[in-house]
Amino acid sequence: MATRRKLIVVSNRGPVVFDRDRDGERIAKRGGGGLVTALRSLVEHHDVTWVASAMSDEDRVVAAEAGGEAIEETARGGAPYRLRLVAHDPSAYDWYYNVIANPMLWFIQHYLWGLASAPDVDHGLHHAWTEGYVAVNRDFAGAVVNELEREPDAAVSFHDYHLYIAPGLVRQRAPAALISHFVHIPWPMPDYWRVLPETIRRAIHEGLLASNVVSFHTRRWSQSFLRSCADILGVEPDQVASEIRIGDHVTHVRARPISVDPHEFDEVAETDTVRGQESLIEAARPEFLVLRVDRTDPSKNVVRGFRAYELYLDAHPEMHGRVQMLALLDPSRQDIPEYAEYLGAIQRAARVVNDRFQRDGWVPLDVQIQDNFPQAVAAYKQFDVLLVNAIFDGMNLVAKEGPLVNTRNGVLVLSENTGAHDELGEWALTVNPFDVAGQAEALHEALTMAADERRRRREAIAAHVRDNDILAWIAGQLADLDEAQESLASPVSV
Amino acid sequence: MATRRKLIVVSNRGPVVFDRDRDGERIAKRGGGGLVTALRSLVEHHDVTWVASAMSDEDRVVAAEAGGEAIEETARGGAPYRLRLVAHDPSAYDWYYNVIANPMLWFIQHYLWGLASAPDVDHGLHHAWTEGYVAVNRDFAGAVVNELEREPDAAVSFHDYHLYIAPGLVRQRAPAALISHFVHIPWPMPDYWRVLPETIRRAIHEGLLASNVVSFHTRRWSQSFLRSCADILGVEPDQVASEIRIGDHVTHVRARPISVDPHEFDEVAETDTVRGQESLIEAARPEFLVLRVDRTDPSKNVVRGFRAYELYLDAHPEMHGRVQMLALLDPSRQDIPEYAEYLGAIQRAARVVNDRFQRDGWVPLDVQIQDNFPQAVAAYKQFDVLLVNAIFDGMNLVAKEGPLVNTRNGVLVLSENTGAHDELGEWALTVNPFDVAGQAEALHEALTMAADERRRRREAIAAHVRDNDILAWIAGQLADLDEAQESLASPVSV
Repeated sequence: MATRRKLIVVSNRGPVVFDRDRDGERIAKRGGGGLVTALRSLVEHHDVTWVASAMSDEDRVVAAEAGGEAIEETARGGAPYRLRLVAHDPSAYDWYYNVIANPMLWFIQHYLWGLASAPDVDHGLHHAWTEGYVAVNRDFAGAVVNELEREPDAAVSFHDYHLYIAPGLVRQRAPAALISHFVHIPWPMPDYWRVLPETIRRAIHEGLLASNVVSFHTRRWSQSFLRSCADILGVEPDQVASEIRIGDHVTHVRARPISVDPHEFDEVAETDTVRGQESLIEAARPEFLVLRVDRTDPSKNVVRGFRAYELYLDAHPEMHGRVQMLALLDPSRQDIPEYAEYLGAIQRAARVVNDRFQRDGWVPLDVQIQDNFPQAVAAYKQFDVLLVNAIFDGMNLVAKEGPLVNTRNGVLVLSENTGAHDELGEWALTVNPFDVAGQAEALHEALTMAADERRRRREAIAAHVRDNDILAWIAGQLADLDEAQESLASPVSV
Repeated sequence: MATRRKLIVVSNRGPVVFDRDRDGERIAKRGGGGLVTALRSLVEHHDVTWVASAMSDEDRVVAAEAGGEAIEETARGGAPYRLRLVAHDPSAYDWYYNVIANPMLWFIQHYLWGLASAPDVDHGLHHAWTEGYVAVNRDFAGAVVNELEREPDAAVSFHDYHLYIAPGLVRQRAPAALISHFVHIPWPMPDYWRVLPETIRRAIHEGLLASNVVSFHTRRWSQSFLRSCADILGVEPDQVASEIRIGDHVTHVRARPISVDPHEFDEVAETDTVRGQESLIEAARPEFLVLRVDRTDPSKNVVRGFRAYELYLDAHPEMHGRVQMLALLDPSRQDIPEYAEYLGAIQRAARVVNDRFQRDGWVPLDVQIQDNFPQAVAAYKQFDVLLVNAIFDGMNLVAKEGPLVNTRNGVLVLSENTGAHDELGEWALTVNPFDVAGQAEALHEALTMAADERRRRREAIAAHVRDNDILAWIAGQLADLDEAQESLASPVSV
C-alpha cells in the first residue's frame, strides 16, 4: 500500500449517518454494515471522496448546507476524507431500495423467489425500475461525474447491487474514467436473471460491463457473471483471462474475497462492554453452546437451522438440558413484506422447538432479535459450534469473525453456498443448506469432535483470516485497478 | 427410417393401462401424456419392447400372469410390440413418484422452489431417495438387463426424469449396451441442482452419463447439462463436440426437439367428436377468443396468465363483452400438496377476474378443469390468441398443436422459457413469463394484429411443425444412436 491514491468510493450507505442529539447538536453516528466497516480502512491510506445516499433527515440538511457538494469528515482514528451525500427524491429512493434492490435483485441473486407465485413484474415494477432504480443511479452518476471534473485522475469504486446502472451512466459522460464495481452478493446463473424482462436484465449487465473491473468475493460468482454476460448479452468472454471485450472496451472480471480487520476484533473482544456481555452469556449457558449470528434475512436460512436443531434434539435425548442454541438476530429490512413475513416464520419455528423440548428451566433455543454487536462478539468467544447455514451468501463474515475470537476451539458448521466456504471449507463441517437432516448430523459431529481436532480446525481458520485480512482485500482491488489502467494505457492490438 | 431396429423403450408410463370393463372383461386404455403419444409411432417402424411401470391394479395382474416377462400387445394402427410391465412395491413407487420425481425433481428442473422455505431435505427425503427412487430405478434396470439378455443387440432408450439412475445400473451389468436417455423437461443450471445433497446430485449426473447419448429438446437445456456436469462432477466437457469423456466412456449430449404428428391432428380435427365440441365453443364464444390449454401444474403459470388478462381488461374497456379467455385445464398430480394448492390458487385467481369484470351475461374468463382432448382440439381451431406463458417448459407441444389446426389465423403468445420458443419464437409474440404487464401488452398486440400478418405467422408455424414432425424427432434420435454406436466400434485414440 505504498502509493497514496485518489479514490471516489460510491456505495448506497455511507460511513456515517448524521442525527441531532437531545441538545439539538449535530452528531455523526458511525454505522453499520460489513461493507462500510471494510471500506473504512481505505480512508486511512488514501485520498477518499465517499459518495453515498443521504439516509436521515439530518443527512439531507447536511447535503443541502453543502449545496450538494462534498464536506470534510474524519474517520474513526482521525483520518480525514471527503463525504458527498446525495439527497434523492424520497419516492424514487423507496422504489429503488424497497422495490428493486430489495426484494427484487436480492431475491434473484440469492435464488429466493418461489417462481410459481412471485414475483409479478407489473406496471409497478416497471415504474419502480425507471423512476426509482435508474433515477437514483442517475443521481449517483451525476455526483461522480461532478467529482471527476474536480479530480480527473481519481479512480471510481462502485459497490454492490444498488448501483448496477451507474457505471454505464458515468462512462457516457467520462469516457476515460477508470471505474471498478464490486458486487458483494452472489451472482446467479443466467437462467435466473430471466426473472427480469429482457430490457432490465440487459441494462444491468451492460451497466456493469461499462466498468474496467467487475469483482466478486469468489470465483464461483465471477464465473457465473461471465456466463450470464455470454447468455444475456451474447458476448464471448475470454475464460482464461477472465475478461470481456466489447469493441475497444475491456472489462476485467475478478474474485477478491472480502475479510475482516483482526486487530479490531482482538481489541473489541477485550473491551469492558464485550466482557460484560460475555459474563451474562457465561452465567446463562449450559455445557454446550450452539451459536448463530445473522440478519433476519430469508437468505440466512434461520428457519431451517432451527428445524435442524429440532431434529438434532430429537435424535439426542442425552443432550437435553446440556445444550442451547443461541440465535442473535439483527432485524432486517422490515419495511419489505417478504422480510417481515420471514421474521414471523423465524419466531414460529423457534416456538416449535421450545414448546416441544423445554423443561425444568432449560430453554433449548434462545432467540434474541436486536442489533447488538458487543453481544455478538461476546458470543463468538463462547460458542462450541457456530452454525452458518445460509441458502446463498456472497461471503458471510460471521464465518471469519467467530473462529477468530473464539476461546473454546468451537467448530464451524458452514453452508457450501457461502463465499466463505471456498476459503474455509476444508476446516469446517460442510452442510447443504436445504438438507436439515445433514445439518442435524453436522451439529452432532461438531459437538462430539475430539478436542485436538477442534483446535486444529479453529486455529487454521483464524490463521487464514489473519493472513488474508481486510488490507489484503483492499490491496487486491487496487492491484486490479492498476492492471486495468495499464491495459488502458497500452491497448493490445486485436 | 429404412432400417428396422430392435429397441427397448423405457418410460415410467406405458402406452396402455389395463382395466376391467363392466362385464369384467380386460380392456386396454390407450393413454395419455405427450411422451407416450410421441413414442407410439416408434412402434410402427421398429421392433420395440416397451418397459413401463404397472400403474393400475389390472396392470399388476397382467404383470403377474406374465411372470414379470413381456406380453405381446398391439398399437393403434395394428403394429405389434412387446410390453413389459414392472410391478413395483407400492410404497417405493409412492416415494419415487410423489416425493422424488414430483415435486422434488420437477420443481428443481423448473426453478419452482421458494428456497427460503422449501424444500426441506429431511430424513423422509433421504429415505424416499434410497428406498423409493433408487429402488424403482433398480426394478427398471433389472427388467432392461433381462431384456438385453434376450436381445443383446437391442438399443435401450430411457425417457425422462423418473429414470436418471437406471442407465448407470444397466451399465454395471451390461457394459457393452448401447444406451440413450432423453430428458423431456428443462435442465437447470448447476447452482439450482445444489438444492439436492451432494450424494444425490452426483448420482443423478453419473447415472445419466452412463448413457451413450443424453438428449434434450433444445440446445439451451443440453448446454446447461454440460455445465452442470462440469460443476457437479468436475469433468471437462468438450463444448465443440458436445460430449463428455470419462475414462474410455463417451457420452454424446444432443438437442432433438420433440414434435407432433400433423396427420393425426388433421384427422382428429375433422372427427365428429371434435366438430361437436367446436359447435359448442362457437355458440358460446364472443368476437375474440383467447385460449390456454395446460395441465394445472405450477410450471404452466396459469395464475400469472389470469393476472395478465385482468390487466389487459383493465386497460381495454372497449373490449369488455367482446373477448373471452377460455382456459382448458387438465387437473394434474393432485396427490401432491404443491399441486393441489396450485389448483386452489388458479381458482381464486379466476374468481378475481370474473368478480371484477363480468356483467350482462358476459363471462370474461371461462375455466374448465377436466381432461378433454377433443375439446382442446376444437378450441385450437377456434382461438384468436393462444397464450403459452410457461415459467419454464422443456418443449410445450400446445404451442405446436394449436397453430397447426387453427382456422382463424390466431396468434401465438409464447414464453421465452419454453423449448418451443427456440423454434417458433420468430413467428410468435415473445413474453417473459414473470412480466404480467408485458403479457397484457402482448394480448393487446395479438388481438389488434393485421390479418395478413397473423396469417403469415400462423402459416409459418404450421409449416415448420409439418417439416419438423414427430418422425423427424425419432429419426434424429436413431441417428444419434448410430453415431454413438460407430464411435463405440472405432474408438478414437486419445
